[in-house]
Amino acid sequence: MDRRATLLVTCPDRPGIVATVTTFLYHHGVNILRLDQHSTGSLAKPGLDLPSRPDSLASPGTFFMRIEFETPPVEGARPALEAAFKAVVAERLDMWFSLAWARDLRRVAVLVSKHDHALVELLWRWRQGELPCEMHAIISNHEVARRAAKDFELPFHVVDSSDKARAEAELERLLDGVDLVVLARYMQILSPAFVEKFHHRIINIHHSFLPAFVGARPYHQAHERGVKLIGATAHYVTSELDQGPIIEQDVIRVSHRQDAASLVSLGRDIERQVLARAVRWHLEHRVLVHEGRTVVFN
Amino acid sequence: MDRRATLLVTCPDRPGIVATVTTFLYHHGVNILRLDQHSTGSLAKPGLDLPSRPDSLASPGTFFMRIEFETPPVEGARPALEAAFKAVVAERLDMWFSLAWARDLRRVAVLVSKHDHALVELLWRWRQGELPCEMHAIISNHEVARRAAKDFELPFHVVDSSDKARAEAELERLLDGVDLVVLARYMQILSPAFVEKFHHRIINIHHSFLPAFVGARPYHQAHERGVKLIGATAHYVTSELDQGPIIEQDVIRVSHRQDAASLVSLGRDIERQVLARAVRWHLEHRVLVHEGRTVVFN
Amino acid sequence: MDRRATLLVTCPDRPGIVATVTTFLYHHGVNILRLDQHSTGSLAKPGLDLPSRPDSLASPGTFFMRIEFETPPVEGARPALEAAFKAVVAERLDMWFSLAWARDLRRVAVLVSKHDHALVELLWRWRQGELPCEMHAIISNHEVARRAAKDFELPFHVVDSSDKARAEAELERLLDGVDLVVLARYMQILSPAFVEKFHHRIINIHHSFLPAFVGARPYHQAHERGVKLIGATAHYVTSELDQGPIIEQDVIRVSHRQDAASLVSLGRDIERQVLARAVRWHLEHRVLVHEGRTVVFN
Amino acid sequence: MDRRATLLVTCPDRPGIVATVTTFLYHHGVNILRLDQHSTGSLAKPGLDLPSRPDSLASPGTFFMRIEFETPPVEGARPALEAAFKAVVAERLDMWFSLAWARDLRRVAVLVSKHDHALVELLWRWRQGELPCEMHAIISNHEVARRAAKDFELPFHVVDSSDKARAEAELERLLDGVDLVVLARYMQILSPAFVEKFHHRIINIHHSFLPAFVGARPYHQAHERGVKLIGATAHYVTSELDQGPIIEQDVIRVSHRQDAASLVSLGRDIERQVLARAVRWHLEHRVLVHEGRTVVFN
Repeated sequence: MDRRATLLVTCPDRPGIVATVTTFLYHHGVNILRLDQHSTGSLAKPGLDLPSRPDSLASPGTFFMRIEFETPPVEGARPALEAAFKAVVAERLDMWFSLAWARDLRRVAVLVSKHDHALVELLWRWRQGELPCEMHAIISNHEVARRAAKDFELPFHVVDSSDKARAEAELERLLDGVDLVVLARYMQILSPAFVEKFHHRIINIHHSFLPAFVGARPYHQAHERGVKLIGATAHYVTSELDQGPIIEQDVIRVSHRQDAASLVSLGRDIERQVLARAVRWHLEHRVLVHEGRTVVFN
Repeated sequence: MDRRATLLVTCPDRPGIVATVTTFLYHHGVNILRLDQHSTGSLAKPGLDLPSRPDSLASPGTFFMRIEFETPPVEGARPALEAAFKAVVAERLDMWFSLAWARDLRRVAVLVSKHDHALVELLWRWRQGELPCEMHAIISNHEVARRAAKDFELPFHVVDSSDKARAEAELERLLDGVDLVVLARYMQILSPAFVEKFHHRIINIHHSFLPAFVGARPYHQAHERGVKLIGATAHYVTSELDQGPIIEQDVIRVSHRQDAASLVSLGRDIERQVLARAVRWHLEHRVLVHEGRTVVFN
Repeated sequence: MDRRATLLVTCPDRPGIVATVTTFLYHHGVNILRLDQHSTGSLAKPGLDLPSRPDSLASPGTFFMRIEFETPPVEGARPALEAAFKAVVAERLDMWFSLAWARDLRRVAVLVSKHDHALVELLWRWRQGELPCEMHAIISNHEVARRAAKDFELPFHVVDSSDKARAEAELERLLDGVDLVVLARYMQILSPAFVEKFHHRIINIHHSFLPAFVGARPYHQAHERGVKLIGATAHYVTSELDQGPIIEQDVIRVSHRQDAASLVSLGRDIERQVLARAVRWHLEHRVLVHEGRTVVFN
Repeated sequence: MDRRATLLVTCPDRPGIVATVTTFLYHHGVNILRLDQHSTGSLAKPGLDLPSRPDSLASPGTFFMRIEFETPPVEGARPALEAAFKAVVAERLDMWFSLAWARDLRRVAVLVSKHDHALVELLWRWRQGELPCEMHAIISNHEVARRAAKDFELPFHVVDSSDKARAEAELERLLDGVDLVVLARYMQILSPAFVEKFHHRIINIHHSFLPAFVGARPYHQAHERGVKLIGATAHYVTSELDQGPIIEQDVIRVSHRQDAASLVSLGRDIERQVLARAVRWHLEHRVLVHEGRTVVFN
């Protein structure tokens, strides 16, 4: 595992980027395990597009790429590679990149309120080895999750949410050094200032198929409207409620037989799965955000 | 087929309704092929309900039932059964009911604009024997569907939609005697007066997962928001745009690789299937509307 | 909950069965919450059937029904109802029936080997209140599940499987009084004699879409064959390996990107869900076995 | 469209292949629109793999890649590119490749027996522009498909299948110049000699989830076994019945309510979709066959 890494790249599209990056990697003795690339805008015309699509060369589109690779077993290969990539490739191509080594596990904290189903699913997958991270702490404004924290031998902190400013100050202290904050049904709205500090590093699970049923009690809204599918949405948190970039969504079929309470129960299953997939993809460096939407390499 | 019928029933819930109806049918020599019943409200506590659910006896709930049955091969069995059911059962139980014989095929007209994919799917299934109805006419404000009408040997009428009042008057004339109007991507908004004349007898396919992306160009809205699933919704048309009772919905997975034009193309498949299912269920007497939501026995 | 019950019924089809049963229940003051009925054979011609279907009156078909109901809050209502139903209804209609009160929780034991994912899912849902049963014990031929048993505060027994006869004798002792045995990835084949003692009361999860990939290492078989979906099957155990009545199945999409080891990992999710649904439906009295196939009222 | 092309590549894995190919393309003035690459064997350790996976360097694995690109608008760019790629890249890397220009539409013939649903779906999508090919002919051993051929204005040939040798000789004559043969429910087994002439260029739709229910009447087999999902499988035809490389599969949920005739009806929908996807992916150069399994870049 020591030598595995993932490179995420985005920049304005132009010919030769793949060749430039892969030739660079080859000269550093790197072996590419998987490469996934695509472009938007006028240069990219994937098979499904309609012929009527506008194709102005004025807009060059955006290039996205993810590469999993393995460095050679040489002392110092890593800092050399990072410094050289920045100087030789990234700066010349006006490129944003992220280079992550598999052994550098990110630190995760999970925030939860009264319902621990999404939390337990994450912890269970983490113990199975499916989530490559270090579990830092479970934090809640209720006592319910204490049991799960104990079962999984993790630190558990209760932060009283009645005074929001005080609660957020306490949260910030507890989240010091944390790379990813997961809101696994944390029923508090975080302040814009707090959200800004963890830009694209807070993942929330919303219990509806966004943008349907924004806000509170979405299952009751869904029941009221008589929808035939209910869903869940995992997204990065931004300062606008339920408007952040969507990472993953899924749905489950319901019928007139289910009342609002039943929808809540059925919805738990879909919430668990959607959040777990989103967290995993984030930890595996599969997610890029571009113009308010995600690119998910999966 | 001559002796097959479907009974749809709804009334305030109370003990003894199933026994009353089925004993009545038994005494008329009827053989029940399938029975599906459920109730809402405080009397009904299906397995999934949460224990905390309120259970006030003050609200009696609503009873719904669908029965497929076969009458005996006796001359006159049918009018006798209808008259007796009304007098002996329905009036005493304050019951709304619909009694439909399989041999009485309903007349259907399909309205379409420039895209004929949903129309062709309906016609193809109709020819396969999957839609128990008589196809009355294809009506459009464009010429595109003429070819499909010809292939399936059906009358085709073009109604110019530039003058709405005139167009609707012409439509009414063409729809005389029609039981069900299907809007298979008919891109015109019908007036409340027109809709009222076909109360719960107009089915529309909306090309999004309602209530997300109400209104025009939903696939472009979906692309803009970066959703991971796109959907389609078949619903009865009411005077409020895209707010009528939902009959069926489904979704398909999309990714960042698809642009808005690709979503349109992918969406066609899901629109075709969702509309075909909704029309079929309507024609098979599987749909009841109750408080703005459908009960679909399927 | 005290007064809730479920009646499962099967008998040769003939006119009047629904009327007989529901009138009986009405006279006992019972309120029906949900009724689901259907028939096979020549009398039943559901909507989807093709017109060419043979329709000989010589074969009368089989009648199946499930009723959820509520008895009146009267002392002694329950034994009176049971005795009367047997005498007045069941014996006269040559009917098999099962009458189960919601308060009579069934006792469940879970057998597991080295993989505890399906076990943990069951226990988690049980704690959420989704599985109406009493958890009696966790039994294994390995130590892996001890942790889960401890977390959920349940008895844990290790039974050495090296001597099969001895192991089964020990199992029988531990399963005394148990109503349902769940094999949540228990990698031992039980003897026909043992299986016979728990006729249609042992549920197994097989990690393939049966009847594809019977026997050992199904994910490796699936990888070898290059299938595009992998599945799991929950079934009652009979004396023939992987041939018992199927209760539930589901699949998940895979691609050439996954090797056999990845299929194992992906398969865990589908195994968990399929087994949990099957166990739940069994506990909710939704499953009947008829001619080697299940009827699942869901 | 003139300048769009797809390159499919497979060879033994080794470092530097992506760099070599993309640098080559860059020097020919090519713009890459999309690149998808992965490797099997010991060098590839995708995220999902288990830690216990064997990792012997003795087995180098296989490299697969698909590139969509656009050549410069230069006269003669195409033959120059082809010749140079062969000499400079493919031969040195022991590489199999296929280079296909979007404007070179492949010729397709569809063989069908009595059921035309899969045929009509293909033709409808072809007319919509979803299948990039030239439709050469519809061939059948029955008259049923004549109507569809007429509706879509395509040549229709009846080939009597009572004498197999004679029928295949006639087929060969009709298929002269055809690139892809689609068996859209063609209920005849082709001889190994015939299959050999169209190696990996015959796609069949089998109406079950292979390898379950090989051979005749799979829906009846499925009904008999009581499965809860039925499926369809599109695969390349090889000389062993139903054993060729699987391109696509899908399933649909069924219940005890459906008899075998209903499964046939439900199955049609899934057959249509699965075959259409497989044919499309083949025509879009998304499918490679490796060791009896497909690699599908989608």
